[in-house]
Amino acid sequence: MADSPNCDLKSLSPLQLFERVTEQGEKVRALKAGKAPKDEIDAAVRMLLSLKLSYKTTTGQDYQAGLPPKDLLLINNGTTKEEDEDLVDPWNVQTSNAKGVDYDKLIVRFGSSKIDTDLINRIERAIGQKPHHFLRRGIFFSHRDMDQVLDAYENKKPFYLYTGRGPSSQAMHVGHLIPFMFTKWLQEVFDVPLVIQLTDDEKYLWKDMTIEKAYEYARENAKDIIACGFDINKTFIFSDLDYLGTSAGFYKNIVKVQKHVTFNQVKGIFGFTDSDCIGKISFPAIQAAPSFSSSFPQIFNGKENIQCLIPCAIDQDPYFRMTRDVAPRIGQPKPALLHSVFFPALQGAQTKMSASDPNSSIFLTDTPKQIKTKINKHAFSGGRDTIEEHRKYGGNCDVDVSFMYLTFFLEDDDRLEQLKQAYTSGELLTGELKKVLIETMQPLVAAHQERRKQVTDEIVKQFMTPRKLAFEF
Amino acid sequence: MADSPNCDLKSLSPLQLFERVTEQGEKVRALKAGKAPKDEIDAAVRMLLSLKLSYKTTTGQDYQAGLPPKDLLLINNGTTKEEDEDLVDPWNVQTSNAKGVDYDKLIVRFGSSKIDTDLINRIERAIGQKPHHFLRRGIFFSHRDMDQVLDAYENKKPFYLYTGRGPSSQAMHVGHLIPFMFTKWLQEVFDVPLVIQLTDDEKYLWKDMTIEKAYEYARENAKDIIACGFDINKTFIFSDLDYLGTSAGFYKNIVKVQKHVTFNQVKGIFGFTDSDCIGKISFPAIQAAPSFSSSFPQIFNGKENIQCLIPCAIDQDPYFRMTRDVAPRIGQPKPALLHSVFFPALQGAQTKMSASDPNSSIFLTDTPKQIKTKINKHAFSGGRDTIEEHRKYGGNCDVDVSFMYLTFFLEDDDRLEQLKQAYTSGELLTGELKKVLIETMQPLVAAHQERRKQVTDEIVKQFMTPRKLAFEF
Repeated sequence: MADSPNCDLKSLSPLQLFERVTEQGEKVRALKAGKAPKDEIDAAVRMLLSLKLSYKTTTGQDYQAGLPPKDLLLINNGTTKEEDEDLVDPWNVQTSNAKGVDYDKLIVRFGSSKIDTDLINRIERAIGQKPHHFLRRGIFFSHRDMDQVLDAYENKKPFYLYTGRGPSSQAMHVGHLIPFMFTKWLQEVFDVPLVIQLTDDEKYLWKDMTIEKAYEYARENAKDIIACGFDINKTFIFSDLDYLGTSAGFYKNIVKVQKHVTFNQVKGIFGFTDSDCIGKISFPAIQAAPSFSSSFPQIFNGKENIQCLIPCAIDQDPYFRMTRDVAPRIGQPKPALLHSVFFPALQGAQTKMSASDPNSSIFLTDTPKQIKTKINKHAFSGGRDTIEEHRKYGGNCDVDVSFMYLTFFLEDDDRLEQLKQAYTSGELLTGELKKVLIETMQPLVAAHQERRKQVTDEIVKQFMTPRKLAFEF
Repeated sequence: MADSPNCDLKSLSPLQLFERVTEQGEKVRALKAGKAPKDEIDAAVRMLLSLKLSYKTTTGQDYQAGLPPKDLLLINNGTTKEEDEDLVDPWNVQTSNAKGVDYDKLIVRFGSSKIDTDLINRIERAIGQKPHHFLRRGIFFSHRDMDQVLDAYENKKPFYLYTGRGPSSQAMHVGHLIPFMFTKWLQEVFDVPLVIQLTDDEKYLWKDMTIEKAYEYARENAKDIIACGFDINKTFIFSDLDYLGTSAGFYKNIVKVQKHVTFNQVKGIFGFTDSDCIGKISFPAIQAAPSFSSSFPQIFNGKENIQCLIPCAIDQDPYFRMTRDVAPRIGQPKPALLHSVFFPALQGAQTKMSASDPNSSIFLTDTPKQIKTKINKHAFSGGRDTIEEHRKYGGNCDVDVSFMYLTFFLEDDDRLEQLKQAYTSGELLTGELKKVLIETMQPLVAAHQERRKQVTDEIVKQFMTPRKLAFEF
């Protein structure tokens, strides 16, 4: 392909090698069938054998026609998952451990890098202020190429932020705010533009939902996102259904990605099957394309190849592993990533919150009374069975959901540490810890509701209009 | 799915039934794994058995997991083709018969209808003039629902025309003009608007070509198309790469089609494999969407559900069989079709012309001298080996390419009939017949070149600007 240079076999993934072997096999068959000259056939066969050898070296398995390799770095549909591993993909998160997913293992499996103290200190030096508590507390725990973003930033080279949301229902819960709260902070401290993708097309394709409904949810969700406090002069929010029809640059990047990803690859990464609709199969390219600044000619004044940084929950990583694989082949820089842990359900950290179960989450529309009742009734406790035992042995913060929520929403480090010690020592009872959480969440949700009320249709329209953002490149 | 009503099993295609069985099997497994109540599992198993029975009744085969049925009406990649059948799909046309493809057999296999004398007479009555010689001579030979278009026309209900071209190179040959010459005539006699799709995205996906090159070819080809004489006030020509980024209506229809077509289906229809890129796999929806008037809100003033009529060569029919299958499920009318035969290569009717072999075709850029040389040197002759034999036994018009070309380009019926009789009787020699063809093609190509010169960039821009067309709906 014109824009795909020949690359060294060693740099190919198992799936890419698999496809090279398959193609070469077809070529040999075609040459034989076409009675090509013997030396031509011999050369093709030698190439085939060499490809098969590379495949075996890389995967440790013999090539078998029709059986693509299991890519051990990818978690697909649970099929390549080891017995004791957590299930993490864009549609499922499951673990048997009450502490939640084992994130250190996930870093190894996904091949990303841990956000360690060195990186956090470097961020602090770069921005000249204390890093966000999501970084300090390991809520954003993993990254790809964040060092490169900092290199660029220190050399006064621009970058932009990209995050998104699948608007599956009108009701968002507090867990949905995590990436947006963090992204807002990144926008402020680095002073960079931001694009936010609302994948209403994805929701239409995956759910029993009309196009109109998906688009309506996108606009409703945009209000909650705007209420997080993004800078209107530096933020572009878009619905795919809308923006795809207003930007030739976006579609061109989508079709470029679509040319460089095969069905075998999305099958391996996302677990698609032959019974899936062709819309699902090609959708990953639509989530990939905003990683390239040429998708937004108006925003970046036509400037291409601006570095992109994507803050997102770790379950979205498969999309961007694919994007990073394609990027160099279409002449684009790889996006960098910052990954967050999952937000636990009230019932415990075994699963992430779900918008479809009203009791699994505190919703942004909940009243103070609903918040109080939900926390008191449903928040999984790490406390002991009786007051006497609790006083004697203390509670377990590692599994206590109220404490976990406080690590997300209580900004005061000292207070959090005091609570932890008091709860662990048995001095603080579960009911008292829950009271702190209730008193933290009630004003937070009420303030959000107040800000959301201020978001008029006119403001939504402004955020969603493609335009040059206030930033010089 | 919300916009897909439950339909009677009898109306499902083998592939659809296959998917229903697969889905139901998955449901049963999920119920069993989830230890669902016994009566629920029993009901699901009964449904599964009933679906399997329907499948067997429809296909004559037992259901086998993972093995989609061969749809006997579809010609895919040659794999379901019977031994003695012609190969016809959007990328290949092959036959072993010197007379060309057996079109009567193709009608039966594709499940379309023959354009018979009754239909031609009805068209004549409707438009009040003699039908185009492409209709009278069986060059447009097959249709789908043309009666319905005429019903609507006679009741003063509007329809619009849709045709297209894959811009694979700058050079177009005279065979490429056939659908456009006929479409121009349809536009004139029915006085209806017309949209012409240039699938530059398809060419980028299929060929070793950059996006920029594909778009350049699209604009160059637009000039040749415009030179056919389309009414600028009633014709919209668009490049996919361009228009997809300027019309939300178009993308919405694409994603609707993509939701209702599975990989199994495009595998069956187009012969795609797991190694194909996801762009190819989802492309058929992009060729389908212009069949729905809501893809062109500017042109039709936002009016939806206007009947579409597609004149095209028969090899494009697989796209529109798929489109017609999806249309009712997304609440749109099925497009009607008029199918043409293939234009034969100079070397004989076994294959259609190819833009990649300069000697297989008369190109629109050829000089009078090149035309003369090509016809004299390459046009396959149905004449006898010696003049004596020819005088005695006569020539064979059924295989003579010069005569075939004259049926396309010599409008005078009487003259054509005279030539046929004179050639068949041996009175006319091959050289003389070729001379008539040369004298027909030279001025035709020269006139085209003259008109093309008049097509300025400004005119191309006007044709390619989305705008309300001069027609009241």
